[in-house]
Amino acid sequence: MKLCRFQTTDGPRTAIYHPDHGICPVDLSDDQFYTTKVEPNDTWLPMPERLLPPVPNPEKIICIGLNYRDHAIETGSDIPTEPVVFSKFNTALVGHGDAIILPKVANRVDYEAELVVVIGKSGRHVHVNDAMDHVFGFTCGHDVSARDWQKGRPGGQWLLGKSFDTFAPLGPCLVSKDEIPDPANVRVRMHLNGDVVQDSTTAQLIFDIPTLISHLSQIVTLKAGDLIYTGTPPGVGAARNPPVFLAPGDQCAVEIDGIGRLENVCQAEA
Amino acid sequence: MKLCRFQTTDGPRTAIYHPDHGICPVDLSDDQFYTTKVEPNDTWLPMPERLLPPVPNPEKIICIGLNYRDHAIETGSDIPTEPVVFSKFNTALVGHGDAIILPKVANRVDYEAELVVVIGKSGRHVHVNDAMDHVFGFTCGHDVSARDWQKGRPGGQWLLGKSFDTFAPLGPCLVSKDEIPDPANVRVRMHLNGDVVQDSTTAQLIFDIPTLISHLSQIVTLKAGDLIYTGTPPGVGAARNPPVFLAPGDQCAVEIDGIGRLENVCQAEA
Repeated sequence: MKLCRFQTTDGPRTAIYHPDHGICPVDLSDDQFYTTKVEPNDTWLPMPERLLPPVPNPEKIICIGLNYRDHAIETGSDIPTEPVVFSKFNTALVGHGDAIILPKVANRVDYEAELVVVIGKSGRHVHVNDAMDHVFGFTCGHDVSARDWQKGRPGGQWLLGKSFDTFAPLGPCLVSKDEIPDPANVRVRMHLNGDVVQDSTTAQLIFDIPTLISHLSQIVTLKAGDLIYTGTPPGVGAARNPPVFLAPGDQCAVEIDGIGRLENVCQAEA
Repeated sequence: MKLCRFQTTDGPRTAIYHPDHGICPVDLSDDQFYTTKVEPNDTWLPMPERLLPPVPNPEKIICIGLNYRDHAIETGSDIPTEPVVFSKFNTALVGHGDAIILPKVANRVDYEAELVVVIGKSGRHVHVNDAMDHVFGFTCGHDVSARDWQKGRPGGQWLLGKSFDTFAPLGPCLVSKDEIPDPANVRVRMHLNGDVVQDSTTAQLIFDIPTLISHLSQIVTLKAGDLIYTGTPPGVGAARNPPVFLAPGDQCAVEIDGIGRLENVCQAEA
């Protein structure tokens, strides 16, 4: 099952998503979202240009840093001995087709393609062997990062550099876990203006998805809808020589096999 | 106006709060919460032992680190030249009278008394002169902090050490800003088992409330209900000689003049 959400004049609506057929709206309240299997009916609409983030009202956006060995090395960081965890504020969420707004106050805005885990069942102290029971599915995430706000500032906290409005594109669709038989081996790519600039698989994760869920649940109650951005592969702009940062008009596409392409165009802040 | 929220068999309910008279339930939906002035009626109930966090469903918990000059010095940190910003996950919120659960996996859990700003009106790029227009009011916050998870871990992010479930006590009541005529000079104290261990005023803040709001709104849209924990005064346990950390049975009370006392007892994780 692939779900998406789209804006209507009556508010957000959920639909079944099919990359070729379009979208088939279904009746699914936010309360039923993670517990109800929906079937398509006969009403298919053309694919909207823009979609909402496919997860209604996630409470937490949990992000894992430096979780691909080669990416940790390219940033000059040590290989983490436990997951590096930071967060984005929810006001950063946008959907497929929305603009990434490049802030006036940030000069070094970078791209990061990521597989995002969507929690479907609450839990605390989840054993690693039970962790996948708490997963609803997967989507594509773009962890847009203002490097000049992420690092080198007093206190060293990454939060603000990761949390500018529009810095958390998510979508285009949410794929239930039964359609991703091996989440430990899915290909993750970032296309920048048509060029492949990141290309790896989740086989390269230092901490795999069950380990992340178990680790995080030692600390916080995971809730249905919580998002885990699992980390980015090597190839980010800041690590290139010369560095590459996002500019107005740049076209970013996060592509993950079995999910789809999350496309967003950069735009200067008005 | 002082508001609180309490649990009923029909769910959370809002009330007018009076430390001597008790609570007077009022009809106020979450949508009306920040826009509607309520008046007490004749039905006063005795003060419940436990209250809910006084803010319904805050989206963000924004926290400012090292914002009292003496506290920055006691932690061995440089005086920040701009606000140090981190966050807590919402699953950490608890109310007055709830237990602070000391996690099995954390050994150095510390207290931090803080004045918390509650945003009442959304805004982005808010000028410092307009910042107080975006404030609904104030409450007491306790920024419980597991020092062994906050610092010295890979990546240096404070988030997890600040986000264990129950690590964000808030309350007892939300005081509208008209009752705090000078938020730049309110006394903030932490009582630990009856001893005053932190005692300062917001006159000591390095970055005052309008500056914080203006700074944050450069980056994120502030929304009604967002919380800003404004930082803690000197006297935290980790900076004492010998250090003092929270133990089961410890009684913590954050007291802020004009707001009240937020009381929570520590309890070992089961």
